[in-house]
Amino acid sequence: MIFTERCRSTQCRSRRGTLKTLHGAIETPVFMPVGTQATVKSVTPEELIECGAQVILGNTYHLFLRPGHEIIGRLGGLHKFMHWERPILTDSGGFQVYSLAASREIDEDGVTFRSHIDGALKRLTPEKVIEIQQTLGSDIMMCLDSCIPYPASREDVALHTMLTTRWAERCLEHRTREELLLFGIVQGGMYPDWREKSSRDLVELGFDGYAIGGLSVGEPRDLMLEMIEHVRPLLPDSKPVYLMGVGTPEDMVEAVERGVDMFDCVLPTRNARNGMLFTSFGRIVIKNSRFALDDRPLDPACNCYTCRNYSRAYLRHLFMARELLAYRLNTIHNLSFFLGLMGEMRQAIEDDRFKEFKREFYRKREKTCSN
Amino acid sequence: MIFTERCRSTQCRSRRGTLKTLHGAIETPVFMPVGTQATVKSVTPEELIECGAQVILGNTYHLFLRPGHEIIGRLGGLHKFMHWERPILTDSGGFQVYSLAASREIDEDGVTFRSHIDGALKRLTPEKVIEIQQTLGSDIMMCLDSCIPYPASREDVALHTMLTTRWAERCLEHRTREELLLFGIVQGGMYPDWREKSSRDLVELGFDGYAIGGLSVGEPRDLMLEMIEHVRPLLPDSKPVYLMGVGTPEDMVEAVERGVDMFDCVLPTRNARNGMLFTSFGRIVIKNSRFALDDRPLDPACNCYTCRNYSRAYLRHLFMARELLAYRLNTIHNLSFFLGLMGEMRQAIEDDRFKEFKREFYRKREKTCSN
Repeated sequence: MIFTERCRSTQCRSRRGTLKTLHGAIETPVFMPVGTQATVKSVTPEELIECGAQVILGNTYHLFLRPGHEIIGRLGGLHKFMHWERPILTDSGGFQVYSLAASREIDEDGVTFRSHIDGALKRLTPEKVIEIQQTLGSDIMMCLDSCIPYPASREDVALHTMLTTRWAERCLEHRTREELLLFGIVQGGMYPDWREKSSRDLVELGFDGYAIGGLSVGEPRDLMLEMIEHVRPLLPDSKPVYLMGVGTPEDMVEAVERGVDMFDCVLPTRNARNGMLFTSFGRIVIKNSRFALDDRPLDPACNCYTCRNYSRAYLRHLFMARELLAYRLNTIHNLSFFLGLMGEMRQAIEDDRFKEFKREFYRKREKTCSN
Repeated sequence: MIFTERCRSTQCRSRRGTLKTLHGAIETPVFMPVGTQATVKSVTPEELIECGAQVILGNTYHLFLRPGHEIIGRLGGLHKFMHWERPILTDSGGFQVYSLAASREIDEDGVTFRSHIDGALKRLTPEKVIEIQQTLGSDIMMCLDSCIPYPASREDVALHTMLTTRWAERCLEHRTREELLLFGIVQGGMYPDWREKSSRDLVELGFDGYAIGGLSVGEPRDLMLEMIEHVRPLLPDSKPVYLMGVGTPEDMVEAVERGVDMFDCVLPTRNARNGMLFTSFGRIVIKNSRFALDDRPLDPACNCYTCRNYSRAYLRHLFMARELLAYRLNTIHNLSFFLGLMGEMRQAIEDDRFKEFKREFYRKREKTCSN
């Protein structure tokens, strides 16, 4: 069994599971820090482990363009290249072509685009993204998908959703390394019937896991949760479910409640570099002058390296002075918060008190406090 | 005794010593990594210790401007602020006012200048720099000096050298925290008689140590070494001698041979961020395309965190992609090289084989090799 559901809440759809991969087991629900260019920005693998990371995400699009998957392959694969021995999930590049590349053109066979780095003309097909991910040695590979903007017409959604399914089938057929897991990506825009069609077709093809794509793309939050609620029961409980690109701590709590097992998002790492820090009592903008003489840790409830050793005043100073250490200490804290939150959720599910956990989670954030 | 000479080479002026400070003993000869803004750029105190750092340098000018010494003082001093428990030497700000500040004006009492950060009008006097350094809690404080460009006329050198001595006397008088050491700074430009005058006047005043300032400011290397050779015998062997702002590995080997005990320089840290790496066989420019597929460590003879875990190919990728981790891994390596070199020199002096060490040091760098 690749995925084992260890226990399930009696209060909601939340569940605790274990996902087996070539580089070890992943306890779910899980958050995956984003390591776009073969590095989670500013931190080392040892620090990621101390923060509680079990698995990281790498970006196929970026690694394909620089340094090139063949170089990484010749150097022994992505794990060895970046000195990370735990599991890696790589996305397929579909979303980055959609969001980063210039002048992209989609046809039945694949997508042609210009690199955001040097404008070079490049092409990705379903077969190519499998080749890239197998060369990288990704533990969990994703199928190439055709992304859909929000809002989109029924016609556009139908077109891209059907194309995504045909591409998924080609990915499945092209895979030769069976020890590397392959996930399909559900599309369907905000149309429940197309979400259903996408889910049923992918499940029919049979993947190691299923991702819910095309959410958190600008739609209202209620609509996102509605789509999760609609799609989740259509996916088999015997497989892990991954909500791509989500999200805030609040989004993750809501999605776990609705039965999602896996998450990735640039939010903790990107916001760290912008000085926006997550705490148990809400968010802190570290450049605020009220922290100039504040000798308390960012979050007194946090036990991360940053909170154990540095004051808000020092973190503010580093950020104001644009010191490199600022980005790193902030990243360590934010990742520790996100990963710690997932750990609390796993425990709450095991203890069958997810509802109580959720109530307490929101209560702490609503408290008026001097922090 | 603040300074103890533990042993002395029979081959040259090099010597092994121990300098006692409020935050512990420093084994000399020593290199001090530069931590300008209350951080050695990109690395943590724990990493500095792993690299072999015994003492770091902080910049009075920068900390005075941002976040302000009073803030650091109210937060418990510089050590606590930046989470560094070993000794700190702070410069006086004289050199930064000279090199960074706009529209500076020197008078008998002090120097008025505009901040390089926001253009605010600021003033430093000998008394003020002692107040700042005492508030920071610096283990080794430096007197305010009036820097001299190269080349400079005898008249200018005479003026600034005499002023530096009068300021040194005022610094000494203003010091109230006797547990914090205070060093005088020898000036005198490239004029042996003014170097002599400066040395004798400062020794007459009596400091805990003596710095040789105003070198490595653009003069030919032979002239720098000549000045060190001239000044060093004028300073008491019972006190540590600090060559400010020097230098390359080669410069440090030559200066230790001539009896210098302490060094600081931005070279290892700044060059690391520019991708210029020091090794036992010379320098590496990591962006060079010949490293794209090179799976060897930067320096196979190096045991630092970077060399233990990453290939040249990965370091090149990080640097080309401008990843934050590049600056950090490069900094760890360069500092390890500089600090390791000082360790080798200390051992060579203890074994009374400094000449042999020096011959081998140059031999390794001259070898034609494929690295």
